[in-house]
Amino acid sequence: MKKVSSTNLVYAFSSSMSPVLEVASGDQIVFETIDALGGQIKFEGDVINLDFSKVNPATGPVFIKGAMPGNTLKVKILKIDLAEEGVIVCEEGFGVFPELVKGFKAKMLRIKDGFVRFDKLSIPANPMIGVIGVAPENGHFTTGTAYKHGGNMDTKYVKTGSAVYLPIFQPGACLALGDVHAAMADGEVCVSACEVCANVTVEVELINYEIEWPLIETESGFFIVVSMGTVEEALKEVTYQAVKFLSRKLNLSMNSAYMLASLVVDIQISQLVDPNKTVRAYIPKYLFDGKGEIM
Amino acid sequence: MKKVSSTNLVYAFSSSMSPVLEVASGDQIVFETIDALGGQIKFEGDVINLDFSKVNPATGPVFIKGAMPGNTLKVKILKIDLAEEGVIVCEEGFGVFPELVKGFKAKMLRIKDGFVRFDKLSIPANPMIGVIGVAPENGHFTTGTAYKHGGNMDTKYVKTGSAVYLPIFQPGACLALGDVHAAMADGEVCVSACEVCANVTVEVELINYEIEWPLIETESGFFIVVSMGTVEEALKEVTYQAVKFLSRKLNLSMNSAYMLASLVVDIQISQLVDPNKTVRAYIPKYLFDGKGEIM
Repeated sequence: MKKVSSTNLVYAFSSSMSPVLEVASGDQIVFETIDALGGQIKFEGDVINLDFSKVNPATGPVFIKGAMPGNTLKVKILKIDLAEEGVIVCEEGFGVFPELVKGFKAKMLRIKDGFVRFDKLSIPANPMIGVIGVAPENGHFTTGTAYKHGGNMDTKYVKTGSAVYLPIFQPGACLALGDVHAAMADGEVCVSACEVCANVTVEVELINYEIEWPLIETESGFFIVVSMGTVEEALKEVTYQAVKFLSRKLNLSMNSAYMLASLVVDIQISQLVDPNKTVRAYIPKYLFDGKGEIM
Repeated sequence: MKKVSSTNLVYAFSSSMSPVLEVASGDQIVFETIDALGGQIKFEGDVINLDFSKVNPATGPVFIKGAMPGNTLKVKILKIDLAEEGVIVCEEGFGVFPELVKGFKAKMLRIKDGFVRFDKLSIPANPMIGVIGVAPENGHFTTGTAYKHGGNMDTKYVKTGSAVYLPIFQPGACLALGDVHAAMADGEVCVSACEVCANVTVEVELINYEIEWPLIETESGFFIVVSMGTVEEALKEVTYQAVKFLSRKLNLSMNSAYMLASLVVDIQISQLVDPNKTVRAYIPKYLFDGKGEIM
């Protein structure tokens, strides 16, 4: 199987990226990823001045032959193999409640048998990928930021068994991923999760269809994922996108689709702590007679 | 069983309310409720000038003997019996995406065998109570508004089998409820849900414990429910409340509890369309060794 080692790290998604591997639609790839702190924290008491230039590394990018702007890259998440120890950090001035922390704190977390150990508590692990994205249409987004190209969406449904759909903006797409979490809740309120090194196996596929924002598909439904500067903006945009999706798939007027969304589309929080905030709209598949295509 | 008929409607929760029934802790009560449009819409084509003074009626209030400020009222939802037809409306200038609608639209929705019929679609019903509250500490809140006293929280977990905990601010508490929905999704994006008349059976109980914001208890966890002027403010406050809850129940520093919240507390949207916006923090019970008390 093709593999990208964690010596190939990027700290930004930009419109001109330099691929480190070339694959074809249908290929499987293993990404070796390192934790979101760039491996800088090794011990419980590590109170260090974080080198922010090493935060949120993504492994890649991978060039997918035939990927062209206006099409969509489907990334099926096949497996997430976690390391045995993770770390969570918080820092004064960060998170949903920035006044709550003094200075910088780190806590090491053991991961075993599907649980994350937090003091005497055992938390069910929910392994997921924080950063997954492609080269954007224009400019340069740090890997800590999410937008239409994906990036730091910190969405817990980017997990084994799910498929992530990303709009392709540049030839070859240039897929990179990292920032795996062994456990995270919606909001990621303290600014980080159980940050962990992991090997991630995916299968890529090109889809001849155009999307505007990333989508996640699970067995039961679709999530449209929108990231913008404020949660208010993101909530409005994701609602609009969900209404458009229903209108198109079900051949409804926008007005009817808006009412239907009020009954069946859950508006949810992914993360509230990165430079752009990420929200999602959950659209259940039963509406489409079990037909599971995004088109 | 004690019953409050739908001739007893209030349109505001205020610090001085006039009870229509007196009950004791442990009593069961049936509330006859009418739909959130005040029964003004009877036919699909009804394009009327809504009388807003008749919108969001709540049935009650009920005086609970012995209820004193500083204690908590537990309201167990035992049963929600729906009428056979509901209505959904949207109006220009309302909802998450106010530009999406022109004028006023109403749609009648048949409810049968646990499903709501929307054109050719069958939507699983999720019967829930939109408005449930008590007399507030000060002043006057229209029943369309949610705050610490409860009110129009539009939270889909206020459903059969759940318990709602409300802070008591006035002697007798003065419980009123209404605005039942046969189906609603998180966000309630178009401004309304499947609005329906219903008979709601509850059991009330006084708890000698003080809470600041409403709580909902389900089999698996607690939701802290916060409603404020903007979703940003509400998200920050609900995060703080969840961290305080974890800190107290688990005897953790606020700092540790903040990290734990980032791993296990889901921050969720209830509604984005009422005068105050409502969000909730979900705290799973497994953290407390299955001990299901709020105290």
